Amino acid sequence: MSGGAGFREGRLAIIAGGGRLPHDIAEAARGAGEDPFIVLLSGEADRDWSGFEHATVSVGDIAAVSALLRGKNLKRVVLSGSVKRRPEWRHLRPTLSSVVKLPSIVRTLFSGGDDTVLRMVIDLLEGEGCRIVGAQEIVPNLLATLGPLGRHAPSGEDLRDIAAGVAAADVLGALDIGQGAVAVGGRVVAVEGAEGTDSMLLRVAGLRAEGRISKRRRGVLVKLCKPQQDVRADLPTIGRSTVENAGHAGLAGIAVEAGRSLVLERDALVKAADEAGLFVIGIERAVRKDAT
Amino acid sequence: MSGGAGFREGRLAIIAGGGRLPHDIAEAARGAGEDPFIVLLSGEADRDWSGFEHATVSVGDIAAVSALLRGKNLKRVVLSGSVKRRPEWRHLRPTLSSVVKLPSIVRTLFSGGDDTVLRMVIDLLEGEGCRIVGAQEIVPNLLATLGPLGRHAPSGEDLRDIAAGVAAADVLGALDIGQGAVAVGGRVVAVEGAEGTDSMLLRVAGLRAEGRISKRRRGVLVKLCKPQQDVRADLPTIGRSTVENAGHAGLAGIAVEAGRSLVLERDALVKAADEAGLFVIGIERAVRKDAT
Repeated sequence: MSGGAGFREGRLAIIAGGGRLPHDIAEAARGAGEDPFIVLLSGEADRDWSGFEHATVSVGDIAAVSALLRGKNLKRVVLSGSVKRRPEWRHLRPTLSSVVKLPSIVRTLFSGGDDTVLRMVIDLLEGEGCRIVGAQEIVPNLLATLGPLGRHAPSGEDLRDIAAGVAAADVLGALDIGQGAVAVGGRVVAVEGAEGTDSMLLRVAGLRAEGRISKRRRGVLVKLCKPQQDVRADLPTIGRSTVENAGHAGLAGIAVEAGRSLVLERDALVKAADEAGLFVIGIERAVRKDAT
Repeated sequence: MSGGAGFREGRLAIIAGGGRLPHDIAEAARGAGEDPFIVLLSGEADRDWSGFEHATVSVGDIAAVSALLRGKNLKRVVLSGSVKRRPEWRHLRPTLSSVVKLPSIVRTLFSGGDDTVLRMVIDLLEGEGCRIVGAQEIVPNLLATLGPLGRHAPSGEDLRDIAAGVAAADVLGALDIGQGAVAVGGRVVAVEGAEGTDSMLLRVAGLRAEGRISKRRRGVLVKLCKPQQDVRADLPTIGRSTVENAGHAGLAGIAVEAGRSLVLERDALVKAADEAGLFVIGIERAVRKDAT
């Protein structure tokens, strides 16, 4: 499924935030014959990168990234991993060509949802002559597929929870607020903002322990791609820890958007879900915003 | 502003959950010449009610509530205070007349948003021959008024945060998920589900401490009435603790819907807000769902 030599212009760069996704992509890229160069975001990247050529830059250091892209002939860039902190404007180091955009950069950093910020980062990188490549273009089997991933499948009640979660995640995504929601017994009990999925699941576990969510209804986590987002960055992602946290929250399973979300450590995730009795399913949204 | 003797049919009942609102209403009702009877919800009501004639019932005990309504000639009912737990179906004690509705009651308790549940409770009480009275009909000066309540007013940046929070609270309310949202620097960072406002503000304080929300932008809490909700129950409510928690979260202020939210302990709240430098403002939504 390689794109052919013609598409492999220059060297591949992976700009790496936190979590295991960037490392998985780097390994997969190497397996596909690439020699990826890793740009680690300081304070965010949290893996051992000693096996790969890499350099560390601070999140707002556009000048350092630009110098690396040119110096290492990096022409294709994967943006991957979590970025928890946004740079303060004082810490931005623009290039000469990006300095004119600085007011708009600062405005976007402070006011934009994650999606708006990512689009700005993509614009800046494209301005440096790079092509942005989705993680799924390097490791296509990361994409969630349609239907159950493991042994368990949603019940009729779970399907109703999925529908409720989809409705909530859909409007949240359209407002660029978040990608996830938890529905229990047909009712949305938690919606994801800046805190992230794991933190939301922890909250649901707490509400359950306090008796504020019925212990007799299980519920589901739904994660959807934002309708307007660039699918080359920040696709909804689940991993083994998502399954574990969903289990701690007493949920019956997890639904993600097929073809537009990433499943990390698929074998370990499926094994954990099978053992815990949770389903993990790739779904198509019934209603797409762009279809109305 | 009394509705006249003709409207004072029977004795007033206050079905009381947690928080200080039910007690404030009871005091105000007594001041207006009423002799309110208090139906305390066990595990929820948390004040000293020794000054009022009262009885305690468990949340699902429809039969006990019905017997009280008849025995005490309670014809007008105020629903007030927080209810954190929903009854499990095993703990429901229906009356003969409500037993036919039991399947729908159970379904609503498990799947409905708060608004759906409240509408069911109102239906049940009306089925007992009661009239449901909004807290604001007993204590009209609880309602938030248009404009700043204290010394401080929102800046231009705060107004932008209010607009972002309104957009989020509006769609959440329409989905019967929650009434509140927090926006910082024009971006919605937290939305309220079953956890409640204070818990959401605590989360924002945590995100701020971790550096996941800029320390240089303050932000606002917005609480709106759900567009479809019955204004006789569960109006958005703020009190002094809301101001304190908003302050701990680093926010610049609080916006609530004028005429459709309740402000408790107004003097203490305004004093706390003035001292902490926070604004508290009653707003009209720019766009109403029912106007489109």
